[in-house]
Amino acid sequence: MSWARKAIRGVLLDLSGVLFDGDVVIEGSIDAVARLSAAGVPVRFCSNETSIPHQAVVDKLNKLGFSVRAEQVFTPGPCVRKVLIERGLRPFLLVTKEAEAEYSSVQQTEPLNCVVLSDAQDAFHYQNLNKALKVLIECDKPTLIALGRGKYYREKGELNLDVGAFAKVLEYASGVKAEVIGKPEPTYFNAALDDMKVAAEDALMIGDDLENDVGGAQAVGIRGVQVRTGKFMPRDEQNPNVTADGRVANLAEAVDVILAQWTS
Amino acid sequence: MSWARKAIRGVLLDLSGVLFDGDVVIEGSIDAVARLSAAGVPVRFCSNETSIPHQAVVDKLNKLGFSVRAEQVFTPGPCVRKVLIERGLRPFLLVTKEAEAEYSSVQQTEPLNCVVLSDAQDAFHYQNLNKALKVLIECDKPTLIALGRGKYYREKGELNLDVGAFAKVLEYASGVKAEVIGKPEPTYFNAALDDMKVAAEDALMIGDDLENDVGGAQAVGIRGVQVRTGKFMPRDEQNPNVTADGRVANLAEAVDVILAQWTS
Repeated sequence: MSWARKAIRGVLLDLSGVLFDGDVVIEGSIDAVARLSAAGVPVRFCSNETSIPHQAVVDKLNKLGFSVRAEQVFTPGPCVRKVLIERGLRPFLLVTKEAEAEYSSVQQTEPLNCVVLSDAQDAFHYQNLNKALKVLIECDKPTLIALGRGKYYREKGELNLDVGAFAKVLEYASGVKAEVIGKPEPTYFNAALDDMKVAAEDALMIGDDLENDVGGAQAVGIRGVQVRTGKFMPRDEQNPNVTADGRVANLAEAVDVILAQWTS
Repeated sequence: MSWARKAIRGVLLDLSGVLFDGDVVIEGSIDAVARLSAAGVPVRFCSNETSIPHQAVVDKLNKLGFSVRAEQVFTPGPCVRKVLIERGLRPFLLVTKEAEAEYSSVQQTEPLNCVVLSDAQDAFHYQNLNKALKVLIECDKPTLIALGRGKYYREKGELNLDVGAFAKVLEYASGVKAEVIGKPEPTYFNAALDDMKVAAEDALMIGDDLENDVGGAQAVGIRGVQVRTGKFMPRDEQNPNVTADGRVANLAEAVDVILAQWTS
């Protein structure tokens, strides 16, 4: 495969749609991750999962049968918490009930001056969206933080609108532009690269989201390969904006190719 | 007032925020409408009200104490119903329970090929928005119809996200561009002008929404005056995109000015 002609010295993996779909492991992916580890390939998990806290993501992976360390897993939540505290932002959290735990150390007293928008799922209802609008409209210097730009994801066969789509509601209605923390932002990919001490041109991102995984990685010089699992759709192959460096049936196939060229 | 220097031969009135706020009549507005009628000024009500059917809007106005005929009241619903039937569209209706009655004569059998988005209020929840996305993503030639471009409105002092904001969610996630029926679309203003047989340059639009009422009217050559009731905000006076032809405290003040220049 042309995307593996140049050496790969580190791998970034998306989670949902690549390792699992909902609570179901995608065939071959546990073994694929284990083979990467066994061979000594540096791996980081670079996810926009925000419906549960970071530690719950780590726990989920291990419970499903993957063997990962917390430090290998990047989700936007901990970065957002850091930004909120550093900048003294008092957010209205438009997040799932479960994800609220991620922000328990953040001041959330009135007057609020910030909205944090994550994959809030059922919490994306009219009252909550109106409350978020109120914060953005009525405060002097409002901040809107969106944990990703995703349009939708597929889980258990069903389409689910993602955080990026709801950021559009609030941006349009309030006129406040969202700051994005998560894929496809360059800083997010670079943090994972820095952590494994691999240069962008030596790294590979594997994801099911053509724009946020593949396109986002390519924008910082990382090769981007799309799996034909998760939210992959045949129309992705004709996308006018993003051309993947390659496509594979699933993570297992990608790992076969990576290991064929790997020399530790 | 400069906006009344040139003769006014017909008046278009927005409803919510101009005549009433929720179920409360805005002071002086019943009398103001009555004075226009008594003087023989042609009046049409040009509203984006879509949370209740057209006839319910007419009934509400009369119940609140206004005296209006059904033919004077323009809401997007009846136009949308006509478009759906003419084009053989089978819609998923993202509308309030009450507004469903407007579309009872429209075929809604699977496979659906259209989404109608109106001021659905509490029906703007995650499951319904996901269902709308599914129709747009999975059908070959999907149509998305939005009953307005409104960002938000104020009712009983509270901000409520409007249909235009939710159109952004679905446009962004599905890549399907919304067709708008309602203000600020030129065809919508022109239908009301045609009905009262008044030329655009002889007409005045009075509304509380700077972009959809005032800007929309101006785009077809109608003068646009903003009331300082409803969703008016002081920041509207510095809006870089739309400059109202004038501002008045409320409808009563506008009618004082109109009648001072009126010669039947």
